[in-house]
Amino acid sequence: MGSSVRPIDVVRVSGGGSASRQDVAAAEEPLEVRLHGRTFVVTMRTPGADQELVAGLLLSERILGSDPATGRINSLIRFVPGSDPNVIDVTLAGDAARRAEHALGERRLVTANSACGVCGRQSIDDLMVGVPRVTGALSMPAALIASLPERLRAAQAAFDETGGLHAAGLFDAAGTLVAVAEDVGRHNAVDKVIGSQLLAERLPLGDRVLMVSGRTSFEIVQKTVVAGIPILAAVSAPSSLAIDLAREAGLTLLGFVRGDTFNIYAGPERIILGPETPTKAYNQPR
Amino acid sequence: MGSSVRPIDVVRVSGGGSASRQDVAAAEEPLEVRLHGRTFVVTMRTPGADQELVAGLLLSERILGSDPATGRINSLIRFVPGSDPNVIDVTLAGDAARRAEHALGERRLVTANSACGVCGRQSIDDLMVGVPRVTGALSMPAALIASLPERLRAAQAAFDETGGLHAAGLFDAAGTLVAVAEDVGRHNAVDKVIGSQLLAERLPLGDRVLMVSGRTSFEIVQKTVVAGIPILAAVSAPSSLAIDLAREAGLTLLGFVRGDTFNIYAGPERIILGPETPTKAYNQPR
Repeated sequence: MGSSVRPIDVVRVSGGGSASRQDVAAAEEPLEVRLHGRTFVVTMRTPGADQELVAGLLLSERILGSDPATGRINSLIRFVPGSDPNVIDVTLAGDAARRAEHALGERRLVTANSACGVCGRQSIDDLMVGVPRVTGALSMPAALIASLPERLRAAQAAFDETGGLHAAGLFDAAGTLVAVAEDVGRHNAVDKVIGSQLLAERLPLGDRVLMVSGRTSFEIVQKTVVAGIPILAAVSAPSSLAIDLAREAGLTLLGFVRGDTFNIYAGPERIILGPETPTKAYNQPR
Repeated sequence: MGSSVRPIDVVRVSGGGSASRQDVAAAEEPLEVRLHGRTFVVTMRTPGADQELVAGLLLSERILGSDPATGRINSLIRFVPGSDPNVIDVTLAGDAARRAEHALGERRLVTANSACGVCGRQSIDDLMVGVPRVTGALSMPAALIASLPERLRAAQAAFDETGGLHAAGLFDAAGTLVAVAEDVGRHNAVDKVIGSQLLAERLPLGDRVLMVSGRTSFEIVQKTVVAGIPILAAVSAPSSLAIDLAREAGLTLLGFVRGDTFNIYAGPERIILGPETPTKAYNQPR
């Protein structure tokens, strides 16, 4: 997986003994994202798919507009090459450029001004307001959902090596993996996958399922909804606010997808349940 | 665990069948931290131990000073009561007050100014500079280290219910748990535990071991080092930058602590290995 892992020396302790050995660790490095030359954010991430990461981040931060259907992203965004692999400078056009300037200005206000309008209790409401409604009519059989974790793991090359990377995979209605990304940060893995589709001008993703390897927070749900993905499935648990937002936005949210079982926290109408176990079938007339 | 969990309705899918049931989810809500009435940061967190969370956050952000030995925190920090449980306003005294004003001003500069001095490649070096050296002389037998995950789980009340909370536990040299915290965010759980000790004026924590339920990132190591904790153990993997910082700071960093095995990534001198399996003992003269 190239620069996503790094060789390291470790001492392995087992029972009473120990031995030195070579191992690998998930790579983590800071990335500075600049908009028009000005620092927008510095985030820790696993190097690789940086342009996809930034595209996904700018989408979920609404810099690229709240309507992901504008499939002409490559005329709006340009990545300015630099000498430092940990700095990425972005030039935006049109409305996106205006939103970038606005966001840079607002960030200054938020940190400089005590009159914060998006804070505390108000911010919960505020975060919910303006979230687009998920309209994708995709539905999927429960048995296919249950197979997604194994399909994701099979594609997760670096995880097997390091045990330290989160994975996000995008699947089509037949359960075929169409994009996958790994990162030390859960949010980054989701940004990379969504960003790859954004740069390929495939948004909105109304016929796709997103599967993540860990837990689902508010922010993971937000990113999924903004991309127009109708089903989000996770190996582990969602938070209370993740469930609230999913229900508000009409997203199907699944958790604890393990073996042939999972929980539906929101949007059950998109899950096709199999026939009940025909325990009484033998009693029926032929 | 009070407000750290919230009851929810779920549909449980198992094989071909499904059933509605009551479950619980880890609570996630935004917390706005204000310094002297001005917004410092808005972070998602699990409600509970908010003052501890903020104290730990301000310590690792160096607002409270880089020397954690100044055990008179309660004369430096005051929490101003408000009506909104998701807003916490902090008043600081002395040098901490000056650092707070500086940090608020610098944040404005960082987001408003394109000449960022702590970005990209430079920021890696910069993040390493000024990290205090861990000097705690604590050492611990390997067998005791191996027992910490089970001791942490036994204390982790909410995790068992929701599966959605990270835990951080602080242990003494005998392996007794002295503080524990849970949160949807890994960093928050660590801030809460360290903050609880800070507010009890027990820093530096040179005779303590910190055990975390998940992976270790750069930031988790940074928080541990600033608190003066000499041993950090995790159930899962560290990132490359976490290892770099641990080695730089003289921290003992352990990962994959499972069963009777674990990996030492940095600072092996603090781990007391048991006697080797005496495979040749029977050949030796009595």
